Amino acid sequence: MSDPQTLLLTGFAPFGGETENPSWLAVRPLDGALIDGYRVVAVELPVVFGEALRALEAALDRHAPALVLCVGQAGGRAQVSLERVAINVDDARIPDNAGNLPVDTAVIEGGPAAYFSNLPIKAMREAARAAGVPCEISQTAGTFVCNHVFYGLMHALRERPGVRGGFVHIPYSPQQAAAHAGAPSLPVELATRALRAMLETALRTGEDVRIAAGATH
Amino acid sequence: MSDPQTLLLTGFAPFGGETENPSWLAVRPLDGALIDGYRVVAVELPVVFGEALRALEAALDRHAPALVLCVGQAGGRAQVSLERVAINVDDARIPDNAGNLPVDTAVIEGGPAAYFSNLPIKAMREAARAAGVPCEISQTAGTFVCNHVFYGLMHALRERPGVRGGFVHIPYSPQQAAAHAGAPSLPVELATRALRAMLETALRTGEDVRIAAGATH
Amino acid sequence: MSDPQTLLLTGFAPFGGETENPSWLAVRPLDGALIDGYRVVAVELPVVFGEALRALEAALDRHAPALVLCVGQAGGRAQVSLERVAINVDDARIPDNAGNLPVDTAVIEGGPAAYFSNLPIKAMREAARAAGVPCEISQTAGTFVCNHVFYGLMHALRERPGVRGGFVHIPYSPQQAAAHAGAPSLPVELATRALRAMLETALRTGEDVRIAAGATH
Amino acid sequence: MSDPQTLLLTGFAPFGGETENPSWLAVRPLDGALIDGYRVVAVELPVVFGEALRALEAALDRHAPALVLCVGQAGGRAQVSLERVAINVDDARIPDNAGNLPVDTAVIEGGPAAYFSNLPIKAMREAARAAGVPCEISQTAGTFVCNHVFYGLMHALRERPGVRGGFVHIPYSPQQAAAHAGAPSLPVELATRALRAMLETALRTGEDVRIAAGATH
Repeated sequence: MSDPQTLLLTGFAPFGGETENPSWLAVRPLDGALIDGYRVVAVELPVVFGEALRALEAALDRHAPALVLCVGQAGGRAQVSLERVAINVDDARIPDNAGNLPVDTAVIEGGPAAYFSNLPIKAMREAARAAGVPCEISQTAGTFVCNHVFYGLMHALRERPGVRGGFVHIPYSPQQAAAHAGAPSLPVELATRALRAMLETALRTGEDVRIAAGATH
Repeated sequence: MSDPQTLLLTGFAPFGGETENPSWLAVRPLDGALIDGYRVVAVELPVVFGEALRALEAALDRHAPALVLCVGQAGGRAQVSLERVAINVDDARIPDNAGNLPVDTAVIEGGPAAYFSNLPIKAMREAARAAGVPCEISQTAGTFVCNHVFYGLMHALRERPGVRGGFVHIPYSPQQAAAHAGAPSLPVELATRALRAMLETALRTGEDVRIAAGATH
Repeated sequence: MSDPQTLLLTGFAPFGGETENPSWLAVRPLDGALIDGYRVVAVELPVVFGEALRALEAALDRHAPALVLCVGQAGGRAQVSLERVAINVDDARIPDNAGNLPVDTAVIEGGPAAYFSNLPIKAMREAARAAGVPCEISQTAGTFVCNHVFYGLMHALRERPGVRGGFVHIPYSPQQAAAHAGAPSLPVELATRALRAMLETALRTGEDVRIAAGATH
Repeated sequence: MSDPQTLLLTGFAPFGGETENPSWLAVRPLDGALIDGYRVVAVELPVVFGEALRALEAALDRHAPALVLCVGQAGGRAQVSLERVAINVDDARIPDNAGNLPVDTAVIEGGPAAYFSNLPIKAMREAARAAGVPCEISQTAGTFVCNHVFYGLMHALRERPGVRGGFVHIPYSPQQAAAHAGAPSLPVELATRALRAMLETALRTGEDVRIAAGATH
């Protein structure tokens, strides 16, 4: 009897002066969980340009997952957001955890301008909402380590036919927001619930549903 | 042996097309709870100008509470907010649940322009934050039924020396926000936790702490 | 032949690290203007608790205006806003220009909790919009020097029967916003145009029009 | 003596229920202007998927511009924003002016996932700010007709070596914002001033300056 295939879930270490990162807190409880016959492997990535991608690639090699979902913190956003597209640029407003401050450099020299997620993000959004968690499609993952990892993931998946991947941003935890006047928040338990619902839906969905979720600008 | 004194907590019925009101969902679980030797009585108020105040006054007469905290929904706000001041005006952008649309009428004809809460709102804010719930001071409770009830409460307390009162707004629940693209949310369990922490602190605090929590505009 | 009656318009000095205050830039061009037979007198007030009020009272004594409109900067607001109510509290998040940081002290010891503007703010909002300037009613003037001056003005007008007064907040100028990532702005020329339209309308309007312009929270 | 080379500036027709589009109002006054020896040609594009691109391509063929800047309205944004990247997707929340509602279709079937602007957007941002106009870099042009035109422009420029192109979003005009409660605005005169400063800077700048202007998410 063979081992079940794996789903790779990643979260990030704390950064930007925070002592926790809700993305890792939301992902960790799913480590080892069985979802539709797949085993979840949760991995924490460093918030460091380059290093984060090497850690991701090591996890891809080690676990040979059927599907990868990377998760990051989006302090200031009010909802879980499913990213549509990763762009080939690093442009850091704040230093990463190793002090790097790249400006307008490529994530992958010579890579294409962007990659779209190949997960069914519209169906996944519906699943998160049906699970009672506010969720939206986002047209930009920024230009910091989250976008960097998302781009590097999709680039790496070109060599791994049939493997699907994407990126999800989650809000501050209430504990973090209690220290950030005015910032919206979402408990990590709800983020975890949304991630589980999204994974189940992604595994069962081939072509995405056609629901408008664009932005006029 | 005498009955314990009561704390009156009120929430509101759903309005504005919603099927639930998180203020009532957050308040209801505390009904009957003992907090520092006081018994909590939770009462749901209608979202109707005039009627809401009559229901509040009936509850004041019936329960003779030592402290009153009214709670309402503030769809779009990201944090629990402690209201500083109630103003003597009704100005409705949307109809209340009976179809009333008052414009620039007094809550209490001949009443003063405003009442300040006489609860230690700064200390209560700190207590909510310490309990892990994002919380802020608000300088306006609006001009709809929430402000109406807050004003009517403080007016009624003039006849009840020693009784303290105030108003708290809470965000949409995640379930509501899942249907309102972009709106921030807070689980009602966290709102309940904040309310309990606030009540404990209010009971133990005489003069409020001096912490700046104003707005430049 | 007697001198025309005066309209007192006030703006503020720069504060909070800014080198200009759009409120004074918007008010100054109207100094000496004739509006409906009234002569405008423009006065710049210091951004200092107490001192600002003494300067305002001196101007009231000197010019005996028929109507007073105080104007302040609301960095971050997107529209001209007509304030409805001034509250009797100073609560400073940032120091004023003399380094004062009052927390929860009264503007006027023993004064009422609040004063409403006695200007026809709804009609004035319509006039500003008709002049092509975005304008809204605001339910809070904050707790800094703007609210302080607005409260002190309305308190002083109790001794001056028939004199009407109010407060208007205006956004950053584009030059300021060019230095504040993401902040909305309005050219001072448009603020000046709105102020002129508001003054004309205030002079011609007795009882305010009944237009809903409230807030649900 | 030869004719001067041209700069192509485009704006859009009104859409979404508006009676004007500030992008065209801002662009039109520059029609025929000489900037650094180049003649500006301003063209209005329809807000219709497909048709807009055909009109743009006709203008490219007719005027053979050295540089192209397309301009669109971003109702709700507070600043002029220089777009960094166009993505190969149409996803319409609202119908275009011909009633089309594409969902997740490609702008150009078989085209790359995205194109970056090849204009010096950081230097252009600095120029707009120096001209006193609030300006920022944007990481997403949305998924409506603006992104559609921006993507189609960059795709067309692949066949026109040496021609540079990009996209700028501008806020509502004050007249529009006066009808949209709470929306920020910018006078079209200031947008025009920013566009002129941007064009001058683009013409004089080879490689862009290295200034961080990214987003953490």
